[in-house]
Formats: sequence, C-alpha cells, structure tokens
Amino acid sequence: MDFTLTVLGTASAKPSTARYQSAQVLTVHGRSFLIDCGEGVQVRLQEARISLLKIESVFISHIHGDHVFGLFGLLSTMGMMSRTKPLVIYGPVSLGPILKFFLSYYGDGIPFEVVHKPLNVKSPEVIYSSKSLSVSAFPLNHKIETFGFIFREKEPQINVKKWKIEEYALTLTEIGSVKRGEDVRRTLPDGSLLVLPVSELGYKPYRGRSYAYCSDTAPFGDESEWVKGVDLLYHETTYLASQADLAALRYHSTTLQAASCALEAGVGKLVIGHYSSRNRDSAVYEAECRTIFPETYAAQDGSVFDLPLVRFPV
Amino acid sequence: MDFTLTVLGTASAKPSTARYQSAQVLTVHGRSFLIDCGEGVQVRLQEARISLLKIESVFISHIHGDHVFGLFGLLSTMGMMSRTKPLVIYGPVSLGPILKFFLSYYGDGIPFEVVHKPLNVKSPEVIYSSKSLSVSAFPLNHKIETFGFIFREKEPQINVKKWKIEEYALTLTEIGSVKRGEDVRRTLPDGSLLVLPVSELGYKPYRGRSYAYCSDTAPFGDESEWVKGVDLLYHETTYLASQADLAALRYHSTTLQAASCALEAGVGKLVIGHYSSRNRDSAVYEAECRTIFPETYAAQDGSVFDLPLVRFPV
Repeated sequence: MDFTLTVLGTASAKPSTARYQSAQVLTVHGRSFLIDCGEGVQVRLQEARISLLKIESVFISHIHGDHVFGLFGLLSTMGMMSRTKPLVIYGPVSLGPILKFFLSYYGDGIPFEVVHKPLNVKSPEVIYSSKSLSVSAFPLNHKIETFGFIFREKEPQINVKKWKIEEYALTLTEIGSVKRGEDVRRTLPDGSLLVLPVSELGYKPYRGRSYAYCSDTAPFGDESEWVKGVDLLYHETTYLASQADLAALRYHSTTLQAASCALEAGVGKLVIGHYSSRNRDSAVYEAECRTIFPETYAAQDGSVFDLPLVRFPV
Repeated sequence: MDFTLTVLGTASAKPSTARYQSAQVLTVHGRSFLIDCGEGVQVRLQEARISLLKIESVFISHIHGDHVFGLFGLLSTMGMMSRTKPLVIYGPVSLGPILKFFLSYYGDGIPFEVVHKPLNVKSPEVIYSSKSLSVSAFPLNHKIETFGFIFREKEPQINVKKWKIEEYALTLTEIGSVKRGEDVRRTLPDGSLLVLPVSELGYKPYRGRSYAYCSDTAPFGDESEWVKGVDLLYHETTYLASQADLAALRYHSTTLQAASCALEAGVGKLVIGHYSSRNRDSAVYEAECRTIFPETYAAQDGSVFDLPLVRFPV
C-alpha cells in the first residue's frame, strides 16, 4: 500500500551532471505515475529501479523542453521493451502536435497506442480516476499554459468490526450496509426501530494520502487554496529569496514564496526542487524555506519521499 | 595541435546508467566537432569538460532516436548560454523536418541560426573544409539513410630548412616557392638552369591525421576502401560474433565484421562501441575483434583517444 514520491530530476532549465531536469514518479499501490519528463528520465528511472513498463500514465505540466525532452527516448525504449498497453499522456493542448510529429517519424518503433488527453481546466478538476487514486489538474501561473496536479489516494471501503458482528449477530445484508457507510436499521419484534450507527460498527482502515505538484509557477491567488491540506506538496523554488526579481520576470517562485504557499495551505511536508543552475547548494534553498515552513526538504536527484499508511484507531 | 576523440556514449538503442547513446566529439586544433547526438549528450559533454560553446558544428549519421534525441536539449542549452554563432548541422535530408519542427516550437529560445546541410552523397565527398580540417561523408549500409564521416587534418604548409636558406641565399620569392611545394629554379650568369628541389630545401612539419566514423552499418563492399589507411577508425559493433543473424537482420555489424574492415582498410587503431544491451561486458567485444585486428580498443562512455602529432624527420 505504498504512496511514494521519487524525484528523478531537480534542475531547472540547464541540467548538470548532478541534476537532471524535471521528472518525478509517484507510486501508489504498486502503480507508477510519471510526472514531467526531462531529458535523461529513462536513465534516472533505471537508477531508481523503477521499471519503465510499470508506468501507468504520464502527466506533463507544460511543454518547455526541460519538462518534455525525455519523452521521445522514453517512448522509444518502452517500444523496444515491447510495451503493448496503451499509454495515456495528460498534458496541455500544445503537447498534441509534438506527440503527433514524434509518432509520424518514430511511430514504427512504438507498438502501443499513445493517447494524448489534452488538459483544459480553469480550476481543479478530476482528470484521472481508478479504484485507488484520483488525479486533478489545475492551472499554474507560468509563461505558457502550465498545469499542476493533485494525486489523492481514494478512501478505502469501511471495515466492519469483527466483535460487533458477533455482538449484534449482523447479517450479510447488514454487513454490506456498514461497508457502504450506512447505519444498520432493524425493526424489532415489538415494531420499534433499532438504529446501529455505522460509526459504532465500522471503521475506515486508513486515511487517503495526497500529493500536489506545482512546477513551474509564479505565486498566484488560488494556489494555496487549491492544494489545501495535502500531505506532501512539491513546489518549485527556482530562485532564492534575493532573486525575487528574476523569479517574477520568468514566472517562477522563490524559496519564501513556495514556503508561504505551503504554510497557507497547511500541508504536511514541502519538497522543493527545480533549482536554478546559478545556485549550486540546495541547503541554502532549504534553510530559506524553513524560516517560514520548517517541514521543508530540498530534493536531490533520486530523493525518495515515502508517505506511510495512516491507520485510524479502531 | 590536438586531434582527440572523446567517446560520450557507447550504448546502442537502449541506454543504461553506465552507457548513454551514440555521441562523440573530435577536437582538432582546439575546435570541437560533435558526431551524433544521443539523449543526455549535453551532460556527457559537461562530464568530459568540453564546453558546449566550443562546438563548431554537428555531424549526424542518421535520424534514429538514439543518434538525435539529445539534439533538442543541446540546442536549447546552447541558447540559454547565449550562443550567437550559427551552428551548422550536417545530416540526412530527413533531419530537416525534425529541426524545422523543433525550431517552430522551441526556436524562441535559440538566439543563433541553425543551418541544416542535407547530405546527399553516393561515395566519399568533402562536405566541410577549413584551414586545418576537411570532412567527407559517405553512405553506410543501415535500415535508413545513414552516413559515415572521415575527418582529415590538412597537411600543413612546407617549412623551409633554415640552413638551406643560408647555404643557397634563398630570396623571399624563392622561399615562397618552396612553401608552396615548388622547386626553386635559377638562371645562372652563364645562362644555365639550376634546379634546387623542394625535397632538399623544405620539409612537412607533420603528417595530417585522420579519423573515420562508421555507425550504424552492416558490412558493405566499398567500406574498407573508403576508410583506407585512416589512423583511427570507429566502427560500431552492436553484436558479438555469435549474433551475426541478428546483426544482419538489423543492418548492424558484429565484432568480427568490424575487425575485418579495420584489417582490410589497414587502419592504425580500431575503436568499437554501440554495444547491444544484451551484452554487458565490452571486454568480450574487444577480445573477439583482437582475434582479427589486435589494435582494437573497446570504448567506454568518456573514453579518450588521442592521436599525437606525427612529426616528419627533418
């Protein structure tokens, strides 16, 4: 029952030998979701021991090269590895012609369907839903059309307390009601109604976990509201506090802006990355963020952030 | 007066953490020429401490992804580094639409002219010429249109022996003749002709060095003739001798085929690479080649092959 973020690249536009460009994998219940796809992502995936064939789908924030140039090699290698399952790529409308051109030239080597789902949302909307996960997209505030994503583990079905089954001799029908979150209602022999509340009979085994991805973006009004209360927030910090002018000019965020968003949104943890090549030491980024939001962690290429299952007391 | 090959990637189609895809740099007299451009080339260039801004021009053998997917990131980063000098990319006609599409989407970030010189040769033809170097292209035998390249250092101007200047009291005009490779002819007072042969008065300070690049290709009839006598031959060896069927099917070469070409061509050294991901140990490739051509070296990512200046005896 994993819910684990692996950060594959932490550079902004210009990569280095230590920092590749933006790419992350969120693994939820054994399924991997790739978020952005900077150059070299397929090698970083190998380093992180995440099988390319386990990638369920891909989420692209925007089409700047440092977020998409790894896609071509990734798709080609998936093709060589004989993937047959269709691959859905969620991304801006502008990603469409890029994929189309790529497939027109290199499609012979791609024995699986590549499905582009163009994003067109003005506020958070669910774009993906499975048994265990839903993903919402929302617009960010960058130079070009850019989207953030929130991954929410779905709340599991209610478990019925075994000793309550015995105590009340619950029938299968009644157990079914509890699992659906409904109170049990019994008509007693004297015609009166007995209500056994679901809160007494059942319990949620664990709480759904959540992760929000915000890159690339300058701060904007709705941001903290849209990512409110997530367990883990990744927020770009291209620049240090002293580089606020550059950040504004290029529609990026500083450390303090990202930390303020985390604080306002009341998130659990803040992970930062997308460091400008001007600033080599990520410890400085982390220290600046921690003046506002102490639970900040500066990601490195290969950093893993595991959100453990939070079981409710029974 | 360097003439140095740096191999940046030695994988065939599927890269690994240790082996990136095809890319090499030949540095001649301080100028760097990039040959093929697999994904991650810009990071490998950094690792090899070769400045992206020193790249004079690019030579692309063919448009398979493992030879070109690093081009987009490379051009983008050159743009961010404010290159202004035009960049000439020699490559097949089919590279044109790829570059055109890339520039239509990402051209705003490229503040220099990208000039595609389409190749269209049936046998070795000079496609680049400078004071110190000429480059010829010739067709290889691959699934799609593919070219090999020969880089030849130009023979330097003839030096005039100082003691001969004194011995014969050579005039400036006569010295000019020797430098151009002409004999000196003097009419003596008695009307007779004195011929002082250039071979006595001058000498070539060093011999021009040469490098040939053959990837990707199956063997073909003219190959060893076309690369005859080069000092250094890079020849792909995607497959081991036992995988000759696969090699033929996919228009690649085995170790023995590459080594036979080197032997027939009488080259100085053979460098091999483009190893299939099926075979992890390059020492096996090297050993197989050496049964035919002992001067074989299995390249690794980052291998450097330096051809020292060969001075003629004066």
